[in-house]
Amino acid sequence: MTTSEIAPARITVLAGGVGGSRFVRGVRAAWPAARIDVIGNTADDISLHGLRICPDLDTMMYALGGGIDAEKGWGRNDEGWRIAEEFEAYGIQPRWFQLGDRDIATHLVRTELYNAGYSNTEITLALQTRWLGADSPVRILPMTDERVETHIVVADPEQSSGQRAMHFQEFWVRYRAALPVIQVVQVGIDQAKATDAVLESISTADLVLIAPSNPVVSIGPILGVSGVRAALRATRAPVIGVSGILGGAPVLGMADKLLPAIGVAVSAAAVGRHYGPRNRPGGILDRWVVDQRDAAAVAELAADGLDAVAVDTMMTSPEATAAFLHTAVAAR
Amino acid sequence: MTTSEIAPARITVLAGGVGGSRFVRGVRAAWPAARIDVIGNTADDISLHGLRICPDLDTMMYALGGGIDAEKGWGRNDEGWRIAEEFEAYGIQPRWFQLGDRDIATHLVRTELYNAGYSNTEITLALQTRWLGADSPVRILPMTDERVETHIVVADPEQSSGQRAMHFQEFWVRYRAALPVIQVVQVGIDQAKATDAVLESISTADLVLIAPSNPVVSIGPILGVSGVRAALRATRAPVIGVSGILGGAPVLGMADKLLPAIGVAVSAAAVGRHYGPRNRPGGILDRWVVDQRDAAAVAELAADGLDAVAVDTMMTSPEATAAFLHTAVAAR
Repeated sequence: MTTSEIAPARITVLAGGVGGSRFVRGVRAAWPAARIDVIGNTADDISLHGLRICPDLDTMMYALGGGIDAEKGWGRNDEGWRIAEEFEAYGIQPRWFQLGDRDIATHLVRTELYNAGYSNTEITLALQTRWLGADSPVRILPMTDERVETHIVVADPEQSSGQRAMHFQEFWVRYRAALPVIQVVQVGIDQAKATDAVLESISTADLVLIAPSNPVVSIGPILGVSGVRAALRATRAPVIGVSGILGGAPVLGMADKLLPAIGVAVSAAAVGRHYGPRNRPGGILDRWVVDQRDAAAVAELAADGLDAVAVDTMMTSPEATAAFLHTAVAAR
Repeated sequence: MTTSEIAPARITVLAGGVGGSRFVRGVRAAWPAARIDVIGNTADDISLHGLRICPDLDTMMYALGGGIDAEKGWGRNDEGWRIAEEFEAYGIQPRWFQLGDRDIATHLVRTELYNAGYSNTEITLALQTRWLGADSPVRILPMTDERVETHIVVADPEQSSGQRAMHFQEFWVRYRAALPVIQVVQVGIDQAKATDAVLESISTADLVLIAPSNPVVSIGPILGVSGVRAALRATRAPVIGVSGILGGAPVLGMADKLLPAIGVAVSAAAVGRHYGPRNRPGGILDRWVVDQRDAAAVAELAADGLDAVAVDTMMTSPEATAAFLHTAVAAR
C-alpha cells in the first residue's frame, strides 16, 4: 500500500449524509486539486407525497454546494415551511417527516426526471450541476440505480407476530431510534448492482476513503451493493476508513442503536474489525483511523492484522478534518 | 318558467375561475340557505413538473374558502415563492407559469390522490372539505372526470404550416392572449362525459345559473361535455345566464381575444344568442342578464325569442352581486 502518497489525483469516498458531507468537505480541503467522487448511500431514500426523496445525496449536494442549513447539518438554508403548513391543514400524513419548501423543489425536479426515465445517476449529476458547476472536480454518485430501502424490524408486543417493520426514516425520524431493534433489512439489496460509474471510480482511484458514517445504514448498504466490496478489494488504491465511533459512542447520529442489531459492539475497534483488513476474506481496509481517545485500540487491531492509526478525528472544520486526514494517510 | 321563485333550495352554477368565483360568492350571499353546486371548468387544467393543476377549481375553492389572494383574485394568500426560486436556479422550464409554494401543496395532494386512482370529482370533494367544511352547502364539481385541455392554434409564419398549437395556459399566461388566434380546440372533449353528480345536480336544481365567465374557454368546455347541454335543456329549473361582456368588452379577462375565433361578436347580445334560448334547437337559456349599459340589447334579443333583462351587473361585492341576482331572477 502507498499511504505515503499524499497528493492523490483521484479520490473516491464512500459516505452517508450529515457526517459524510462534513467529511467530504474536509477531503476537499485536504486535496483541493484532486478529483473527488463521492459514492453516496441511497438506502435511506423514501417516496412521500409522490416525491422521490434521496436524503443522503441531497445533504451531500447541499453541503458541498453551499445550500445547507449549517446549523442542522441537513436541509436547505433560508428554508420555508408553507407546504408543511398546507399539508397539516389538509390533514395529510405522515406528519413526522416534514419537508421544507426549497427541499421539495429538488424532489420535484428529481421525481419529474425519474418519471421521464432517467437513472438516479443521471439525475444526481444533473441536479449537482447547479450546486457544483458543470466542470466540478467533485461528483456525487448514487451507489446504485436500483431501488434499495432500509427497513427496521422492531419488537412490538401489540402485533400477533411480536414485531413489525418500518421504513428506516420512520424509525429514525419519528421514533428517534428509540425502539428495540430486532433486524435491519435492506429491501432490494440482493437485486442492486453497483453502477459502472461507481465501479470505475473505485478501480481508478488513487485513494479510497470510508467516511465516518453510520456503519449499519450508511456504509453498510453501499458495501452490500453487488460489485462494491469486490471492487474495494481489487483496487490498487489504499482503502482507508475513519471511525465514527469514538470513546464508545457515535460522534454524530445514533449508530449505537443499530450496531448491536448486526452483532457489532459500539467501539472503534469493533467497527474496524467489522469492515476487516483487506488481507482477510471479505475485508476492505488497508488502514483504520480511530480517534486518539481510542489509541489503545491500535495495538489490539494490529494483533488482528489491521493497520490502525490514532489521530484527533473531530471534524470541527474542513481544515481540522484535512489536517487529520493528511496525518492519517501519510502515517507509517 | 318560474323565475318569480326567489328562494331556490338548490342552485347549480356553471362557472370558470376568477369571475366565476366572484359570481358564486354573490350567489351564496343572495341565497344563504340554498345548497349550491358549482360545476367547474377543467379544460384549463395543465400538468407541470409532474403536478396535476386545476386552476379554475382551485380559484373557486380558495375564493369560497377564504384562501384566495384577494388582490389578484386567484392564487393563495400569504403565498411564498421559494420553489419558483429553486426552479429558476435549477433552470427548470417553463418559467412563464409560476406556482406559489402553498398552491403547490394543493397540487401535490391532488396529484397523489390522482395517481392513487381517485377521480377528479372525488379529489375535488376531498380537497374542499378543508376549505368549506365537511357539511358545506356548497359543492365544487368538476364538469367531467375525463381529461380535457384547451389548446389554441395561432398563426405563426415561422412554422412551415403557418400555424402552431399551444396549451391555453401558454397562450393566456405567457403570451397574454396577444397572438392571432386561428382556432380553439378542446382536446379530449369528444370523449368527455358529464359525471353523474353534474347531471343529477342540473336535473334536481331549482335554479341554474351561467356565470359571466369566458364563453369560449370556461363555459364553452362545460357545455361541450357530453350530457351537459341536454341536461340543461331538460331540467325543470329556469336557466339564467349573466353576460360577462359589457359595453362591448369583457369586464374581466380577455374573452374579446377568443370570441372572434368562434365567430361570435364581442357583445352581450351576441353571447346571449350564442348560448341561445331554450325554445330553439340547442339553446340553453330561459333568461339572459345583461348590464344596464347594454339595455338596448333587451328589445333586440326579445325579437329573437330570448328573454333578457338589464341590471347593474358589476360584481363589486358579494352583496352587490346578490342584489342584481335577486332583481334579475325575480323580474317579469
